[in-house]
Amino acid sequence: MNIKVLVKYKAAEKFTKDAVNEYSKRLSKYCRISMKECKSDTQLLKEISERTYLININPEGCSISSEDLANKFSELGISGQSDLTFIVSDEKLSDEILAKINFNLAISKFNIAPSILIVVLYEQIYRGFRINKGEPYHK
Amino acid sequence: MNIKVLVKYKAAEKFTKDAVNEYSKRLSKYCRISMKECKSDTQLLKEISERTYLININPEGCSISSEDLANKFSELGISGQSDLTFIVSDEKLSDEILAKINFNLAISKFNIAPSILIVVLYEQIYRGFRINKGEPYHK
Repeated sequence: MNIKVLVKYKAAEKFTKDAVNEYSKRLSKYCRISMKECKSDTQLLKEISERTYLININPEGCSISSEDLANKFSELGISGQSDLTFIVSDEKLSDEILAKINFNLAISKFNIAPSILIVVLYEQIYRGFRINKGEPYHK
Repeated sequence: MNIKVLVKYKAAEKFTKDAVNEYSKRLSKYCRISMKECKSDTQLLKEISERTYLININPEGCSISSEDLANKFSELGISGQSDLTFIVSDEKLSDEILAKINFNLAISKFNIAPSILIVVLYEQIYRGFRINKGEPYHK
């Protein structure tokens, strides 16, 4: 699976980079994953490929369990969808981007800083692959 | 306000320490906050003072907004409760501890690693104080 995490935020935190590097290393066994900072909606739009399945992190979206997210990955795989894009942004997205979204995922009802949401997201992606492989998860 | 974060987990992450240090620095303007790792329920119990208001982070608890959490802080302050303890644990707590809990707070429906939940929690405490002071929040 090919996963791209697109982020648009006002301020990054130093610890985010360390956490993302750590989870990227762990995830390299299961998928190809990359993160890209976008400064504008135009840049975001350029990074969203036509064939990708687009998930927007949105506190007003759907709250699902870690197992349900793992299921979603496996269903996408089965249906031949191997390209996944996540958007993490603390600003309202343009209508053109909104129209492309396949799923709005709520991580929390809290407004959480994008630099921390990214870390939660990476951990959930990692957890999802571990669940699907039937591997224990201790961290 | 005096805030204590008690954590009980199998494995810490390096980035957690950096994030906690960063938010502790920012929070020093608003409250006294400290984190303590506990190895057992007995140790956890020792750290819970009689007069504290005890919040357990629990995915089956109550999902509230950042504004509601900020309100909770302010209401506790008004009622003269200036001592707050949070528990973040990835194991079932003993009945003796469960009996002391005042509020079960769900950060997410996801099972999130305690080392990341701590970071989200610190950020929400910081956000809560900023909301209550009417200060803008950009990170």
